[in-house]
Amino acid sequence: MMIDGSILVGSGNRRSAALFHAVNPSTGETLPQSFCAAGDRDVADACALAEAAFPAFSALRPEARAAFLEAVAEAILAIGDDLIATAMTESGLPRMRLEGERGRTCGQLRMFAAELSRGEWLDVTIDPALPDRTPPRADIRRMNVALGPVAVFGASNFPLAFSVAGGDTASALAAGCPVVVKGHPAHPGTGELVARAIQATVAAHGLPEGVFSFLPGVANDLGAALVGDPRIKAVGFTGSCAGGLALVAVAAARSEPIPVYAEMSSVNPVVLLPSALAVRADALGTGFAASLMLGAGQFCTNPGVVIAVEGEALDRFVAAAGEAIAAAEPLVMLTPGIHDSYRAGVAALEGNQAAHRIAQGPQASSPTRCTAALFETTAAAFLADAALGHEVFGAAAVLVRCADLDEMAAVIAGLEGQLTATLHMGPEDSAAAASLLPLLQAKAGRVLANGWPTGVEVCPAMVHGGPFPATSDARSTSVGTLAMARFVRPVCYQDIPDGLLPPALQSANPWNLPRTVEGIREVGH
Amino acid sequence: MMIDGSILVGSGNRRSAALFHAVNPSTGETLPQSFCAAGDRDVADACALAEAAFPAFSALRPEARAAFLEAVAEAILAIGDDLIATAMTESGLPRMRLEGERGRTCGQLRMFAAELSRGEWLDVTIDPALPDRTPPRADIRRMNVALGPVAVFGASNFPLAFSVAGGDTASALAAGCPVVVKGHPAHPGTGELVARAIQATVAAHGLPEGVFSFLPGVANDLGAALVGDPRIKAVGFTGSCAGGLALVAVAAARSEPIPVYAEMSSVNPVVLLPSALAVRADALGTGFAASLMLGAGQFCTNPGVVIAVEGEALDRFVAAAGEAIAAAEPLVMLTPGIHDSYRAGVAALEGNQAAHRIAQGPQASSPTRCTAALFETTAAAFLADAALGHEVFGAAAVLVRCADLDEMAAVIAGLEGQLTATLHMGPEDSAAAASLLPLLQAKAGRVLANGWPTGVEVCPAMVHGGPFPATSDARSTSVGTLAMARFVRPVCYQDIPDGLLPPALQSANPWNLPRTVEGIREVGH
Repeated sequence: MMIDGSILVGSGNRRSAALFHAVNPSTGETLPQSFCAAGDRDVADACALAEAAFPAFSALRPEARAAFLEAVAEAILAIGDDLIATAMTESGLPRMRLEGERGRTCGQLRMFAAELSRGEWLDVTIDPALPDRTPPRADIRRMNVALGPVAVFGASNFPLAFSVAGGDTASALAAGCPVVVKGHPAHPGTGELVARAIQATVAAHGLPEGVFSFLPGVANDLGAALVGDPRIKAVGFTGSCAGGLALVAVAAARSEPIPVYAEMSSVNPVVLLPSALAVRADALGTGFAASLMLGAGQFCTNPGVVIAVEGEALDRFVAAAGEAIAAAEPLVMLTPGIHDSYRAGVAALEGNQAAHRIAQGPQASSPTRCTAALFETTAAAFLADAALGHEVFGAAAVLVRCADLDEMAAVIAGLEGQLTATLHMGPEDSAAAASLLPLLQAKAGRVLANGWPTGVEVCPAMVHGGPFPATSDARSTSVGTLAMARFVRPVCYQDIPDGLLPPALQSANPWNLPRTVEGIREVGH
Repeated sequence: MMIDGSILVGSGNRRSAALFHAVNPSTGETLPQSFCAAGDRDVADACALAEAAFPAFSALRPEARAAFLEAVAEAILAIGDDLIATAMTESGLPRMRLEGERGRTCGQLRMFAAELSRGEWLDVTIDPALPDRTPPRADIRRMNVALGPVAVFGASNFPLAFSVAGGDTASALAAGCPVVVKGHPAHPGTGELVARAIQATVAAHGLPEGVFSFLPGVANDLGAALVGDPRIKAVGFTGSCAGGLALVAVAAARSEPIPVYAEMSSVNPVVLLPSALAVRADALGTGFAASLMLGAGQFCTNPGVVIAVEGEALDRFVAAAGEAIAAAEPLVMLTPGIHDSYRAGVAALEGNQAAHRIAQGPQASSPTRCTAALFETTAAAFLADAALGHEVFGAAAVLVRCADLDEMAAVIAGLEGQLTATLHMGPEDSAAAASLLPLLQAKAGRVLANGWPTGVEVCPAMVHGGPFPATSDARSTSVGTLAMARFVRPVCYQDIPDGLLPPALQSANPWNLPRTVEGIREVGH
């Protein structure tokens, strides 16, 4: 498969006069391949094709869409090492990480394929007619239907698993929604390779070409035009708070407002309870440092705030973490822009009177490597200055030293919404954990104990979401099977003749779906 | 139970200097009882109490909240005929209608009680640890948790079933959310009686007082203050488009935006297919007129637009409908303001060059009675002027005369989002119905055949919702068991020790809930 910098609108490959280039973050060099930036005409055409594709695509038997998703996974694997090599060059991420991410991306596509075949997501619910009741009850049947074409904005930090064929695309396609991807400008070649794999699979499966389009570009205008197009019915986004909120504003201002699922910002608080520190301060320090610096700290779930009670054990934690941080080789960040933002964030903490740097990584030899940094502050200062609780994307964190458990609780209660909240507990911490868990649950989509927040399992029980500003919609997750629920709405059908009902609702249950009949759950398979 | 015009903040009854009165719409007289309007202090106190009540209330065993909901139903019935008499005086609605609505209100509370005991709404999903996998998988468990305190804005047209103890309140309480009701000023005495029944039940069940507060008032400021309070986490609203959108704007402008479930405006298109008209034009005409004029047309599901193909059969439909409309006694509308808006809406249609009045009810003898009106227009005119498709709340409708099925399809495709869409079909209409059903499904939350949209069954399969502007969130319903889903969000727990997990997630399944384990559904009871 060749990269030529095209815009992929349905089955067509287009050129434009507006060209852009990616940068190799490891070297700072601009890469030679030029990419065409999509414009308003491409947005309109992609959305028109998506709208045209919607009725047939959403009405497909689930097994047919499942086969398509599995074929997309195969096609991505079939790209071979070109995909990994291109992603390495464009993202600075190491081979093993990207190979793992490719496995996750394909596994995720297969997971949605399995989930949609199982059929729970349709939530088929049937209340048969009660003609003898006074008044008689009509026959009422409910199922979930796809929302319509979905716009997807991938993230820079997962050029495969949260990008062109990432979780948003996979879950939207699974639900029956055509997808228009705004390609991330940091990895346009990686994006094009994956987009071509999807485009070829759409054609191979005889699906309408509008099921998928790929619009590379740099300008924010492109994204705004896409979200503003009246044919788009929902948006999936992973990125910055500013970017997410801009799309939320565009979506809310439409004559028909639409849902935006934006995963934005999180500092993923880690709470160290006293007994945990007493029995394993050193291991916690090194474990924390490893999670903080993993992937140069460029994870949504990066632990950016540590909350703990003062004392000798906490000092041991700091010493161990500081030693690990000081010894770690700085890693390449994803883009020069992200590195600039990281340095600005660290500089702001350094300039904050209430924060003190207590650990630092080695100075980087090349311009886009991430020098990790750990700061400390007091609970009072943290509560007084919201800036200390804002995300610095990269390997920087703030330790909040608390006088006691009450102060820890106050700090937790003052946090904004988070993707994750972590509790480390020791043998004597059960009472404290029991009192803090409800506070943590109120702030986060995932609460974990005795682990680190980085590493998001792709499984039915996963929630990768959380209260604002972690996401724009706390009722959703962007990882796991429940992600499909973002792209459907319930519709009920009253007294529709059986032969005219969607197959999922017909009395003979031709798709063999699990159903709830008269309020009682019947398991299908 | 006495009505004294108090503001009910938790267990406390308060007075204020700002008084207002209700009007008897049947006579136009101002009623003697004065009611205290709540102010900012009351909003803040009610929200603080609700926040304080939330942890304990949301953590209750489902059976305990179910018993509370059932007791609320009993307490409403125990008010006795005072409730019906007060509601008749304040709303102008007839006794039989209000007795039926009371039954529906209590039945709804019991339905949510049963639903929350069944436990499907928690969506418990467990992926056990896989310690031997490479890398090992943590133990991950997901459930739905309540969002927090909910603000409820009742509707004028259902002083019981969509008001203080209506579907929004019942579903929010069922989900574990304390409720602060902004009382509707058209039926303050009815509201107070129901609010006192809930308040007494909260006390009798030993629940925290903040589980429920009732804030009567007239000014829009009161509602804005309530939605703007940072302790409120979701909003349920039924009313006008302007009112709903104002609350949506307040909610979106908060530092933490929250979901607003506003049910707003719908013209509930009715499509008459040729064979249906050919075989039963007269019956369709009288059936339509009855649905149009039911309750003076003051239903969210009132059929305000009829779409049909020109011809002799349609003329018979019009004649039958016109005869029924001309013969019907005008009914009292809910408030003088609603009657004024209705007359203005009808006057606008009369002044519209593209619309012609083809039927009218008798002129009303008293000032707030609704003189029904039926207009007609062409498909081209309807498509050219959006005003012809806007809701006129009351018994007014527009017939859109189409040249053929293609023109009907174009008219349907041009509609805004709707609560309902109705198809009348005869023996020869199956092909036409099959082609139009996907268009109707795209526009509505409920699609029905050979019936009338008025009359919303309260059952698991019901969807009372629909695309914007029918509601502000097409992914939800305000009627039926699925209404609870509006007030929860998913949270997952990773490697939390079993004893610290919420009971719903503990391995022994102490609440005997249905669960999904490793992606496989296990039925609990």
